Amino acid sequence: MATERLKKQIEFILEVDKIKNIFRMTKIHDGSRRENDAEHSWHLSVMAMLLCEYVNEEIDILKVLKMLIIHDLVEIYAGDTFCYDKKANLDKKIREIDAAEKLFRKLPEDQYQSFFDLWNEFEDRKTIEARFSSALDRFQPLFHNYCTDGHTWKKHGVIYEEVYERVEFIEEFAPRLWEYIKAILEESLKRGFFSTL
Amino acid sequence: MATERLKKQIEFILEVDKIKNIFRMTKIHDGSRRENDAEHSWHLSVMAMLLCEYVNEEIDILKVLKMLIIHDLVEIYAGDTFCYDKKANLDKKIREIDAAEKLFRKLPEDQYQSFFDLWNEFEDRKTIEARFSSALDRFQPLFHNYCTDGHTWKKHGVIYEEVYERVEFIEEFAPRLWEYIKAILEESLKRGFFSTL
Repeated sequence: MATERLKKQIEFILEVDKIKNIFRMTKIHDGSRRENDAEHSWHLSVMAMLLCEYVNEEIDILKVLKMLIIHDLVEIYAGDTFCYDKKANLDKKIREIDAAEKLFRKLPEDQYQSFFDLWNEFEDRKTIEARFSSALDRFQPLFHNYCTDGHTWKKHGVIYEEVYERVEFIEEFAPRLWEYIKAILEESLKRGFFSTL
Repeated sequence: MATERLKKQIEFILEVDKIKNIFRMTKIHDGSRRENDAEHSWHLSVMAMLLCEYVNEEIDILKVLKMLIIHDLVEIYAGDTFCYDKKANLDKKIREIDAAEKLFRKLPEDQYQSFFDLWNEFEDRKTIEARFSSALDRFQPLFHNYCTDGHTWKKHGVIYEEVYERVEFIEEFAPRLWEYIKAILEESLKRGFFSTL
């Protein structure tokens, strides 16, 4: 029926369906419910297709898309860690490495390696592909929060400076995109979406 | 704050969030609810990364991923048309062309053109990228139905021959993948998931 290789790939395809039940802090734009990691990863992929032109370096868009598609898979086992939850972030890295190992090991060896490498590169945020992917990963929930009257920021008393600090690295390689992000952050501050230090 | 171009792109990114509320006939693997188009498109992208090795022709995987990411956007306005609903399929093409025009027109001219062309190529199923994307688009719900005891097939009295006919084109360019699909279809038939002619 199927080779060992195809069986492993199919098992993996079945396993990653679970990401559709990993819910994030951020709501979808109509505010009706929280979005899940599959939807989030898809949305980032569309954003990458449209916004990669703002990156002022040569960029491999295929690698960006692959990275965005798989970047949150580890959350199937490690769960979604809220970026402003300092305690949960202490062991996030360890939990996610274990999850990546457990999940990607289900794949044939060469695909295990390529998925693990892509995820690792994303996490390291050193290459332009990883920095741009990470920029979108941080901009998208920020944009959702801006569009839903600061939902998550208000609910968890998130501080303006902490959000600003997480995205200001975008200025270096996508200054025109950064101008827009800075402007909606400033507007959000004026509209009282943030707590203060 | 933002150029006219960026404003259009941001408006589009906001608009396509609505795809997270376009629910399909097929359930997610745990059977708890129907899946939406964003989750479906994401899942197909993972599948493309893993399964493109089964295509026996040279294939542009970047184009495949872009196609899969955007292929269901038209359903934001045209809705999800159940593939076995013959009446709804009569005007599907017209509804979807109108939807593509309405949605993609929100983008800057060059991006409108590239999104429209990608969607059109997917719909035409002539290039190998479109045929492989379409293969995944048909295999994934089939696999979900197989994993959820034939949920949609049973509910709507779907006929084995009709499903078979929709996927047999896969044999030509991905014979090893086709062997697997044929096997799970035959097993589903044995397990009584289908109606008969």
